[in-house]
Amino acid sequence: MYRAEVFVTLKPVVNDPAGLTIRGGLEALGFDSVREVRAGKYLVITLDEPDQDHARARAEAMAQQLLANAVIEDFRVEVQPA
Amino acid sequence: MYRAEVFVTLKPVVNDPAGLTIRGGLEALGFDSVREVRAGKYLVITLDEPDQDHARARAEAMAQQLLANAVIEDFRVEVQPA
Repeated sequence: MYRAEVFVTLKPVVNDPAGLTIRGGLEALGFDSVREVRAGKYLVITLDEPDQDHARARAEAMAQQLLANAVIEDFRVEVQPA
Repeated sequence: MYRAEVFVTLKPVVNDPAGLTIRGGLEALGFDSVREVRAGKYLVITLDEPDQDHARARAEAMAQQLLANAVIEDFRVEVQPA
């Protein structure tokens, strides 16, 4: 069994209203050293694959086909034995 | 400047309807090796702090006070120079 972590982030050129809202909330709480907040998705997928290379390939295919929107999002995948 | 990554996940005992929906979508696409999907939040915060220890402490305080709901969520923070 493998554990794939998929990090989905908006591309740098895409506006991020959720990140701006979080930044405003942090500033209202007194966190005045915050310069930028970008909000993304974090998915942890448990996979039954024979080896780490297969697990990585499957997780990357999942990100391309469903988890990330390639028009506006980037993604990164990390895989470890579970 | 430091770059803090905050990973917010539902506690293992908490139901995750978003994760179940994503799992269903992956299975419908033919990804039949998926055993579990847990959906969380991934926040990237750019901080103007004097050193890495301060940046980590501020990011952890942000997670406790705003970014994560301690009743149902766990969080993890990683900090690197930006």
